Amino acid sequence: MPSRAFSEALGTAFLLAAVVGSGIMAEKLAGGNVAIALLANAVATGAALVVLITMFGAISGAHFNPAVSLVATMDGELSPPKFAIYVVAQIVGAIAGVLLAHAMFDLPIVQVSNTVRTGAGQWISEVVATFGLVLSILLTVRHRPDFVAVVVGLYITSAYWFTASTSFANPAVTVARTLTNTFAGIAPGDAAPFIAAQIAGAVLGLAAARVLRR
Amino acid sequence: MPSRAFSEALGTAFLLAAVVGSGIMAEKLAGGNVAIALLANAVATGAALVVLITMFGAISGAHFNPAVSLVATMDGELSPPKFAIYVVAQIVGAIAGVLLAHAMFDLPIVQVSNTVRTGAGQWISEVVATFGLVLSILLTVRHRPDFVAVVVGLYITSAYWFTASTSFANPAVTVARTLTNTFAGIAPGDAAPFIAAQIAGAVLGLAAARVLRR
Amino acid sequence: MPSRAFSEALGTAFLLAAVVGSGIMAEKLAGGNVAIALLANAVATGAALVVLITMFGAISGAHFNPAVSLVATMDGELSPPKFAIYVVAQIVGAIAGVLLAHAMFDLPIVQVSNTVRTGAGQWISEVVATFGLVLSILLTVRHRPDFVAVVVGLYITSAYWFTASTSFANPAVTVARTLTNTFAGIAPGDAAPFIAAQIAGAVLGLAAARVLRR
Amino acid sequence: MPSRAFSEALGTAFLLAAVVGSGIMAEKLAGGNVAIALLANAVATGAALVVLITMFGAISGAHFNPAVSLVATMDGELSPPKFAIYVVAQIVGAIAGVLLAHAMFDLPIVQVSNTVRTGAGQWISEVVATFGLVLSILLTVRHRPDFVAVVVGLYITSAYWFTASTSFANPAVTVARTLTNTFAGIAPGDAAPFIAAQIAGAVLGLAAARVLRR
Repeated sequence: MPSRAFSEALGTAFLLAAVVGSGIMAEKLAGGNVAIALLANAVATGAALVVLITMFGAISGAHFNPAVSLVATMDGELSPPKFAIYVVAQIVGAIAGVLLAHAMFDLPIVQVSNTVRTGAGQWISEVVATFGLVLSILLTVRHRPDFVAVVVGLYITSAYWFTASTSFANPAVTVARTLTNTFAGIAPGDAAPFIAAQIAGAVLGLAAARVLRR
Repeated sequence: MPSRAFSEALGTAFLLAAVVGSGIMAEKLAGGNVAIALLANAVATGAALVVLITMFGAISGAHFNPAVSLVATMDGELSPPKFAIYVVAQIVGAIAGVLLAHAMFDLPIVQVSNTVRTGAGQWISEVVATFGLVLSILLTVRHRPDFVAVVVGLYITSAYWFTASTSFANPAVTVARTLTNTFAGIAPGDAAPFIAAQIAGAVLGLAAARVLRR
Repeated sequence: MPSRAFSEALGTAFLLAAVVGSGIMAEKLAGGNVAIALLANAVATGAALVVLITMFGAISGAHFNPAVSLVATMDGELSPPKFAIYVVAQIVGAIAGVLLAHAMFDLPIVQVSNTVRTGAGQWISEVVATFGLVLSILLTVRHRPDFVAVVVGLYITSAYWFTASTSFANPAVTVARTLTNTFAGIAPGDAAPFIAAQIAGAVLGLAAARVLRR
Repeated sequence: MPSRAFSEALGTAFLLAAVVGSGIMAEKLAGGNVAIALLANAVATGAALVVLITMFGAISGAHFNPAVSLVATMDGELSPPKFAIYVVAQIVGAIAGVLLAHAMFDLPIVQVSNTVRTGAGQWISEVVATFGLVLSILLTVRHRPDFVAVVVGLYITSAYWFTASTSFANPAVTVARTLTNTFAGIAPGDAAPFIAAQIAGAVLGLAAARVLRR
């Protein structure tokens, strides 16, 4: 179990360093051209996910996401105590990754976001984003397990663009992104409805997978 | 059959949410730089196709496209009644995906496009686009079945750029895109010749595949 | 043999439609931002190559390139008469693809380029581009034959950027691109040294492969 | 061994031609839009890495990087004398690749960079970049060896964006990039701390891999 927890923490840290770091770089270089910034951010995040899931998949399953671990627990693949360890490792790793991104870009290490992300469209987006993420993982694991890393990376690259919220789709990511006042940030007060929407989307994704697996 | 119809409907819904949603986001962020908008739209659509075909391929074949289902029926892989079910599921799913994209971006749910897309160049483009799509699927299914999802995703990413119509190549997609007055829309009056061109391209693609399979 | 010649002609036609068509679209949308235009052109071309080589590889080897067919002939995999048929099919297909791109974009079907592409840097670029293309194919065919399509697509995407000539690397492509006065064109008077450089690069690539295969 | 040294030299030469050449092209076309320039540079470099590692992997392991060869030596996969040969081949190849890029773009062949790259953020970035590169290679070699080329290409594409230094992550690349006063250059006086950070990152990556392999 220590290796698995270390794998979840380290992978989630790298994921957040990629999300937040590439957002900082993109905002810095794009000079107000937000479309280019989001394109770079989406490509960097998707590519990082393919790498991280390939690297860590055989060790811990490479969840990096409490919503995914929740579904795995509901499916009987993770015991409740291990679920708790996974979630703690993911949140600790995610926060460490944000701090590391700040260190790499010579920014104040501890920050709080003031980016407002709220409203029905954003919340529907998070339900859809997490529903699709969970369903794509569950169906791909069954039929093409060697392709899960590619599927998740491409899914997030796409979902950055097709949802209004740019697809957080991950409670640990949401918590950690309250701690950066850069491109990827979200104000702490807006985090709770995002996380609720993500859990709802994940449970709906599991339900759809159960119908489709028959 | 219910699982297969659900798979076609759900997959086509996600496809349209990706096409229309990423178009809305791209137009919003690109500020008149249409090349960046189309690049983001093409990458998001291609990536979504790889994901969706990988997820749903083993369940329903992941057609998401009446032109592809038509060819499968002509090839004897789908019975005429099942063809009808597939087409209904695809159209219902496609329309639902457009409405969902509007909901995510806080836009009026029901819209009608007024984007004119007409003329010989556009129609030739749709023949070419669907011909290439069908031929690439039929030959890849035969020689590299595990690679069909990647081939279709990359094909559409490319064809968004190399055809003058940005490659609808799909009658269900064409119908659904009449219902959005955003980046991806097409005026209802322009849909019929697009669909006719797509069917012609699909039948020509099947004919070419039959020659090349020998 | 007729299927193989048809495969080479059809594949090369699609390749040129993709190269020239995406160049036209890119120039039209990019409004003078040449970097975005070349990025779209490179992504569209690379994606098309992965698709076309996967589709047609099992039928004709998917050369689409007289320099590649030359090397295959020197390696004893293609007889001289078949080499001649391949080259004719490739050139006919390439020209047809350019005309088709013009038809799709409502441009005059027959054009002649007046884009000057000359000088030592351009010619060195073509030697390097074709050397790398041939060597990457020969080594990948040996060690990872299922990955040749991906390798060639990614190679050309990269070489569009790292060579000063944007990597024609293909005599049939060079001939056909004299017939379009759009983004991808090359003045007819500049074609001969490009082709000579490509042949030199291909032969050097074969020589390097022979050393490395030991 | 001569084939392996030739493979390392030729592969590293192509890698540097891709890094430096695409940087020159990007800077030339992007007209001050640095975000587009870095996006093109990142895509071209990542794509080249997938190609080069696939081509040369079966011959020499396709290190192209003294930090990777160091870790292979510490892991007992390369003897110290072979390590020395690898490093010499990589540095000679890297320098040749830079000169070749200059020749292709009609620039002075011999240059010295005056781009300052210094400070804590840059050095932390190089530790992180090389740590992640080495760890991703070591874990992927173990679990998905056929996927190493894709993982390294995507890792570098991502790391160009998520690190403040744009991820040199390679001592031979660092030395060679002191010899170009273009987009990818680094002033010679700034190279030593970069290389020290890379070696530290590589050793930490090996240590993490040893923990995670258990």
